[in-house]
Amino acid sequence: MSRFAPRLLGFSLLCALALPALADTPPANKSATPKELLQQSKPGEWRKPDPNNLLEMRLPQGKVLIELAPDFTPLHADNIRTLVREHYFDGLAIIRVQDNFVTQWGDPEDDDKGDKSKLRSLGKAKKTVPSEYTRPIDAKLPWTALPDGDVYAPEVGFVEGFPAARDKASGQEWLTHCYGAVGVARDVGPETGSGSSLYAIIGQAPRGLDRNLAVAGRVIQGMEFLSAFPRGTGPLGFYEKPEQRTAIASVKLAADMPAKERPNIEVLRTDSATFAALIEAKRNRRDDFYRNPAGKIDLCSINIPVREAKP
Amino acid sequence: MSRFAPRLLGFSLLCALALPALADTPPANKSATPKELLQQSKPGEWRKPDPNNLLEMRLPQGKVLIELAPDFTPLHADNIRTLVREHYFDGLAIIRVQDNFVTQWGDPEDDDKGDKSKLRSLGKAKKTVPSEYTRPIDAKLPWTALPDGDVYAPEVGFVEGFPAARDKASGQEWLTHCYGAVGVARDVGPETGSGSSLYAIIGQAPRGLDRNLAVAGRVIQGMEFLSAFPRGTGPLGFYEKPEQRTAIASVKLAADMPAKERPNIEVLRTDSATFAALIEAKRNRRDDFYRNPAGKIDLCSINIPVREAKP
Repeated sequence: MSRFAPRLLGFSLLCALALPALADTPPANKSATPKELLQQSKPGEWRKPDPNNLLEMRLPQGKVLIELAPDFTPLHADNIRTLVREHYFDGLAIIRVQDNFVTQWGDPEDDDKGDKSKLRSLGKAKKTVPSEYTRPIDAKLPWTALPDGDVYAPEVGFVEGFPAARDKASGQEWLTHCYGAVGVARDVGPETGSGSSLYAIIGQAPRGLDRNLAVAGRVIQGMEFLSAFPRGTGPLGFYEKPEQRTAIASVKLAADMPAKERPNIEVLRTDSATFAALIEAKRNRRDDFYRNPAGKIDLCSINIPVREAKP
Repeated sequence: MSRFAPRLLGFSLLCALALPALADTPPANKSATPKELLQQSKPGEWRKPDPNNLLEMRLPQGKVLIELAPDFTPLHADNIRTLVREHYFDGLAIIRVQDNFVTQWGDPEDDDKGDKSKLRSLGKAKKTVPSEYTRPIDAKLPWTALPDGDVYAPEVGFVEGFPAARDKASGQEWLTHCYGAVGVARDVGPETGSGSSLYAIIGQAPRGLDRNLAVAGRVIQGMEFLSAFPRGTGPLGFYEKPEQRTAIASVKLAADMPAKERPNIEVLRTDSATFAALIEAKRNRRDDFYRNPAGKIDLCSINIPVREAKP
């Protein structure tokens, strides 16, 4: 008993394909399974992230892929690209892991106890970047509304592959702090971040951070490495001893990598029919395991499928 | 720069006390900080969990404390107590860790590839327990409503220290699958769980599980150990090799432990004035770091403080 339970619609296509055999042969009167939906998807429903927006972070545990969001945080995207091209992150470390909150990386000297004289130079990158917490709603961006409601924002949905929120009263839109969101750490002042220290959300979406921090992008592959570090025991989950930190081997921009070495992945378009069908399949689970379909789904509970592209 | 950011109201009192020095001296015109609220709390606002409902799971990483919820899942609480008293879990293992979903423990032979002939006996415990997914609303239980709204349920709030939901139309209430919720794994059929395999939620609250699985309790201390295991690479996050599993040293009921060895902790009452003030402090963050208070808070974003009790 208990060996299948509970089931989750996969974070990635690989996970979705791993549903147990029972899901392979749904009764004729049931809707298509997530696996079938993905198998039936059309090639045009998938997109390859722009290599100018795709970061590959190499950790001892594996590879983490981050897609930047220059339509929302263009100045941060520029600054992060500059840092990456200077190899700024190579040899830096995971410096903080606070349970049910964030994993943060950057310069270990950049905390309370750090030796500021040993801080790595940001080179040509800016030391601070304007806040970019929200942006005016751009009607030209492909907005896919999620009609299920939201505790925090008047409207939520997806834009260019990112979970997002908008408020027509203020005319602003912003990326939300869902699981896997990559934000820009900063000091108390609003314009004190640069992208030299970044965090990924590893727990319940801390949506109170929305409109208070810049979301630079999203982890699209490798979250399982960022989420499984031992939690730091210092204040706010910072590691207290150098040996507790994990070194970052390198962070590269896909555009700067030889074509053969670039990550070759595809992300399901969030304005595709298949994505809408997957949301509905999770909103109202049809497999035999679920007796009481939720009927609703929260923005941050929706996974965006990623798969290896054909060579 | 970036060394404090972003801040989180602590999961436990220990974390809350770890807020950086800046929070110690709020301007006179600001509300009390979470740390101050906890310091000002009255002894009667804290409760010691009933030792008959308190489990201590010992892992190599540390101690995990789980509070059972017999007012919601009494038959499961009984069966789990029986299993624990038989030392059923001692020497079993963490068998599954699926990223952004669950950590599950139980008998390693109890999965697809397991050898059923080697399954540990459940002894006097029942092999299956009635489902207990929901229960009729009990007006006698202290319900603390959260007025912020919810995507999944008509009403949410807290009851006896547990995040919960209710639906007056159906007359039912249930415990919600928030971070740290401990649920009863089962097979496809609705009455196939026993409590011999349990899972804890380690990511974005999978509220679609509500009313589909029995919530037996909640991790009140030690979540940082359950959430940081390497993710399993088999289907659904099951570990594929025996050496990937972490052994459970023991699971004991506090009531069965010598008084001196029992966990000596207190949990803030969820019907206390201090808990209400903490929720408001997180709903509308007053510290200088937050420029745009959220104004709302999600049920599963609210942490319930725990502290060491005086000896």
